[in-house]
Amino acid sequence: MAENQCVARLAALRKTMERSGADTVLIPTADYHNSEYVADCFKAREYYSGFTGSAGTLAVRGNEAALWADGRYFIQAEHELEGSGITLMKMGEPGVPTLYEWLKDHMPEKSVLFFDGRCITKAEGEKLSHLLAGKGISIRADLDLAGDAWENRPALPEHAVFLLDAEKYAGETAVSKLERLRARMKEKNVSAYVSSKLDEIMWLFNIRGNDVECNPVALSYAVVTKETALLYLQDAEVTKDLSDYAGACGITLQSYGNFLSDLPKLPLESGGECEEVRIWIDPDYTSYAVYQGLLQNLDRGIDRKLRKKENLDLSVLPSAAAAKIRAEEEKKLLVETPSPVDYMKSIRNETEIRNFRDIYVEDSAALTKFIYWLKKSMKEGAELTEGSAASYLDKLRAGISDYVELSFPTISAYGSNAAMMHYEPGADGGAKLSPEGMLLVDSGGHYLRGTTDVTRTMSVGPVTEKMRRSYTLTAVSQLQLMGTVFLKGCSGMALDIMAREPMWENGMDYKCGTGHGIGYLLNVHEGPQTIRWRVREKADSTPFAAGMVVSDEPGVYREGEYGIRIETILLCREWKTTPDGTFLCFEPLTFAPLDRDLIDPSVLTPHTRSLLNQYHKEVVEKLSPYLNEEEKAWLVRECAEI
Amino acid sequence: MAENQCVARLAALRKTMERSGADTVLIPTADYHNSEYVADCFKAREYYSGFTGSAGTLAVRGNEAALWADGRYFIQAEHELEGSGITLMKMGEPGVPTLYEWLKDHMPEKSVLFFDGRCITKAEGEKLSHLLAGKGISIRADLDLAGDAWENRPALPEHAVFLLDAEKYAGETAVSKLERLRARMKEKNVSAYVSSKLDEIMWLFNIRGNDVECNPVALSYAVVTKETALLYLQDAEVTKDLSDYAGACGITLQSYGNFLSDLPKLPLESGGECEEVRIWIDPDYTSYAVYQGLLQNLDRGIDRKLRKKENLDLSVLPSAAAAKIRAEEEKKLLVETPSPVDYMKSIRNETEIRNFRDIYVEDSAALTKFIYWLKKSMKEGAELTEGSAASYLDKLRAGISDYVELSFPTISAYGSNAAMMHYEPGADGGAKLSPEGMLLVDSGGHYLRGTTDVTRTMSVGPVTEKMRRSYTLTAVSQLQLMGTVFLKGCSGMALDIMAREPMWENGMDYKCGTGHGIGYLLNVHEGPQTIRWRVREKADSTPFAAGMVVSDEPGVYREGEYGIRIETILLCREWKTTPDGTFLCFEPLTFAPLDRDLIDPSVLTPHTRSLLNQYHKEVVEKLSPYLNEEEKAWLVRECAEI
Repeated sequence: MAENQCVARLAALRKTMERSGADTVLIPTADYHNSEYVADCFKAREYYSGFTGSAGTLAVRGNEAALWADGRYFIQAEHELEGSGITLMKMGEPGVPTLYEWLKDHMPEKSVLFFDGRCITKAEGEKLSHLLAGKGISIRADLDLAGDAWENRPALPEHAVFLLDAEKYAGETAVSKLERLRARMKEKNVSAYVSSKLDEIMWLFNIRGNDVECNPVALSYAVVTKETALLYLQDAEVTKDLSDYAGACGITLQSYGNFLSDLPKLPLESGGECEEVRIWIDPDYTSYAVYQGLLQNLDRGIDRKLRKKENLDLSVLPSAAAAKIRAEEEKKLLVETPSPVDYMKSIRNETEIRNFRDIYVEDSAALTKFIYWLKKSMKEGAELTEGSAASYLDKLRAGISDYVELSFPTISAYGSNAAMMHYEPGADGGAKLSPEGMLLVDSGGHYLRGTTDVTRTMSVGPVTEKMRRSYTLTAVSQLQLMGTVFLKGCSGMALDIMAREPMWENGMDYKCGTGHGIGYLLNVHEGPQTIRWRVREKADSTPFAAGMVVSDEPGVYREGEYGIRIETILLCREWKTTPDGTFLCFEPLTFAPLDRDLIDPSVLTPHTRSLLNQYHKEVVEKLSPYLNEEEKAWLVRECAEI
Repeated sequence: MAENQCVARLAALRKTMERSGADTVLIPTADYHNSEYVADCFKAREYYSGFTGSAGTLAVRGNEAALWADGRYFIQAEHELEGSGITLMKMGEPGVPTLYEWLKDHMPEKSVLFFDGRCITKAEGEKLSHLLAGKGISIRADLDLAGDAWENRPALPEHAVFLLDAEKYAGETAVSKLERLRARMKEKNVSAYVSSKLDEIMWLFNIRGNDVECNPVALSYAVVTKETALLYLQDAEVTKDLSDYAGACGITLQSYGNFLSDLPKLPLESGGECEEVRIWIDPDYTSYAVYQGLLQNLDRGIDRKLRKKENLDLSVLPSAAAAKIRAEEEKKLLVETPSPVDYMKSIRNETEIRNFRDIYVEDSAALTKFIYWLKKSMKEGAELTEGSAASYLDKLRAGISDYVELSFPTISAYGSNAAMMHYEPGADGGAKLSPEGMLLVDSGGHYLRGTTDVTRTMSVGPVTEKMRRSYTLTAVSQLQLMGTVFLKGCSGMALDIMAREPMWENGMDYKCGTGHGIGYLLNVHEGPQTIRWRVREKADSTPFAAGMVVSDEPGVYREGEYGIRIETILLCREWKTTPDGTFLCFEPLTFAPLDRDLIDPSVLTPHTRSLLNQYHKEVVEKLSPYLNEEEKAWLVRECAEI
């Protein structure tokens, strides 16, 4: 993208700002649902700055603009911002102000900060509002100036929503899921649950969409009360099948575009029993705009209640006084804790587990065929690139009967490229593979039977002792976590060290979590379960439960040298109950061989050696039916006892 | 305690209640500081109910009374409540209402609940107040009815406070500690820090007291602002030395009894720079009464600010409206996060570390002499009881030069008694020791050089294979955690599995945490660091830092059979820094032998065997200078390589 383009785009934005009385416009990297991946129409930050990274915030004022990017993107952002007139703020570097400090410092007293309240979370919006209140700066979150000044902005994606069969795939009807949600709502004493989280809405209603690349979700909102279930979708995405289905299930379809204007007046009381509105939201997935709408909804009830029960008429008080009283009352009526649906969704039912077990074996077989082909081709001197190798694998996946799409663009990283955790080969096919060193392939697919995600690192020729040692440590880490048994109630924070300790004992570490949840024909990353050791502002404290699925993906990343990751997906299930409690264990879903040529047996302990041999034995058993004779013979050799 | 006594006592209380218009009085088990141990004058719950357990809440109404006790105390409470007319509520049992449910159910509309606001935390008080507001029930927390009707109530303990030498023992002056606290306050943008936590007040001012058994603390409060440091102590506890010291350090001494009445009017602004009061409290250690006093303090400023800055005169508004507005503003001015002092205190400085290393070796030597004596005496057929064994050990400790007192009553538990985690031999000397099975001894002392805590389980004759296996698993757990290295930033929740995994692999577990912090001539249990795996409502997420001290005490408890615990105290220190980060490790402070007769070598892996041999080698090296020839020869045999 040429620099000049951005200069003109910023000039157009500044004209709009001037007309609206905006001192500063904030342009984050988010859609209306705080999704991990966003559609093109939400890439305003990229449009105005030229910076293409997956995270970063742009702040534009009349005579200056700055972009905050994190360490992953310093070099790229520096390059892409050149000539745009935008200052790069390297987050975390000494002397670099935070966005908040910069705004507080640069914005004059009593000026106005604009942002699209739909693209900023409730928490961020409140933080900005409190921070700037001291300088008398006000917030306007109801206008999308960056969108208004965006020429030829892509339209919102509009793809038909499809139904996921409850009996064959989802394993539970939407009606039953809604019932369970309402039971949780009753426990929590709320009259409504309002969701903006796309994947959980899909799960709750047994539907899927196609509005975000590699994420089979539809833009949507949902409101569930004791009696009603409102599902907001774009009209163009609603098929006849869906209407019929909604009618039969007691789901009321509404227009996505009306959600924000509906919010203040939606009836959220739970009938006669308790006439007070109490609303449950997940603050991480509720936008500032949705939050404002909910407050307006609450305020009607608050004014009424205070008049009736406390004989307090807010309409006769000074408006500042009334606002403070409403704010005090609002807090009591808004329950802000993690989503109940997200948790329900994370526990796979028997149907989902059966489908997962099936599809993971088929998906593993595709990967194993690929590994065989890759090693053979490299030995035969074939000319391959990272990209052509990835394409071969993608095609094998697409051949599986219920294949839908890739669950993310295949990461195929050769040599030192693999040291970059999120490397993707470019359109030019990426690096050429030489017959030495290693290729890291992280890939997965969406199928009606579930979503897969797997990483294997393969030698494509001679490797160094250091590489073998690193690979074996990674294998040990992965196997040791896989073999861990633990008491019910244990969270991923308590488990992480089982994977990481072999690294730590050698003064090594990988700079990412060990595991994440995986959706069922949904996002390849989902929560609330996670395996990571470091204390974060938000606690990763969801205990594991039987039926949860999680990745196990330690690695070694050596900048400029090589990168290794082994990722196997695990199903959590009950192990046994003793007088001391109920114990859980992990069952691997992924069955693809570890690379025999990369194993240094001297690094193995008797325990980890037996874990490896046991796993390899199962790999042969599970995959053999899917392989031809040549592949099978190779796999048996590859998996022989070490 | 005879039942009749309680009946009369409750009758006297009910008369006082009637006079005050109290429907219900709540009598918890706490002093004014939410201390783990409380002085006799705070044992009102025991006085009125006869129940002597360490936890439990009594609720008394005109014609009924109920006591909530947890599972540890069901049998004891049932027995002790007999004839008192008090209903036992077995917490957690099906069908048993919680205290909250019971109050809500039994108290009539618009009645009044009384409790001493000094003995209930801010969080509990608020929960009660919100819960009962729905029924129009109000709270009175400013009267101590249970205290008023208590005949011959013991007086508050009053023991002179003494100074802890900064150079020799504390390693840092109070002036320097106050400076560091003020720096943290500045970061947090607060003008005052108000502490009710006894051990942190002692640490902050380099003083110690003697008001709580086994806890060298004085009843006290502290208020620190940018310029002032107020220390509230009972007048009778202030010596001339202390007055002089306070004067020299810029500490203002105040009367403990005046604290609550002072609170509403104390100047807590931080001078000219920022004229707003913002107060930091730790909500877990701030009583409801202190909280109410702080709100009154804030309200003065709030009224003034709203009048001046927002032109809003609360005095002309309806009082309900003014109260709501004040509540909304108060929230912004009260910072409720864990104590900064508690964290500062947890990190030992060089002087404290040197003293700890010294005293732990001497204390370990005393324990080791005891073990030698015990085994020899049992072999020789001596008549010993749990109590007489404990006394022998206590005397050895008292012989150490700077001994102050025991850090808790010595736990000496023989045979199946050891399965009860907090067993103490009674005044009759407890069980007689037979020459078979095991004795568990958990003990420690306060010294000027620090506080110790150690557990060893010893065979006193033949043992079963099952006991040996359990003991060896416990040793493996303890050694494995001791040998763990980990990245800086790791919390105890991430580490716990290193101790627990050998148990879990065998379907076993111990029902308590693995480790707690230990004070420096302060409470034997302190935080914020802790090693436990289970997710609790309050996250145990303080990362370990070099200088922290923590216990490592796994165990096996088999009801009716035996109990095993091995507790070694560890110092956290830096291991090394690599390109992947800074790693920490543990150094043992305790050096007492594990019981050779109880080790089953087949349970050891090569790794844990080498950890054991290495530890035993150090035990011999460290302790030899303190032992006589006979003891030394025995120790060398006991610690020979396995």
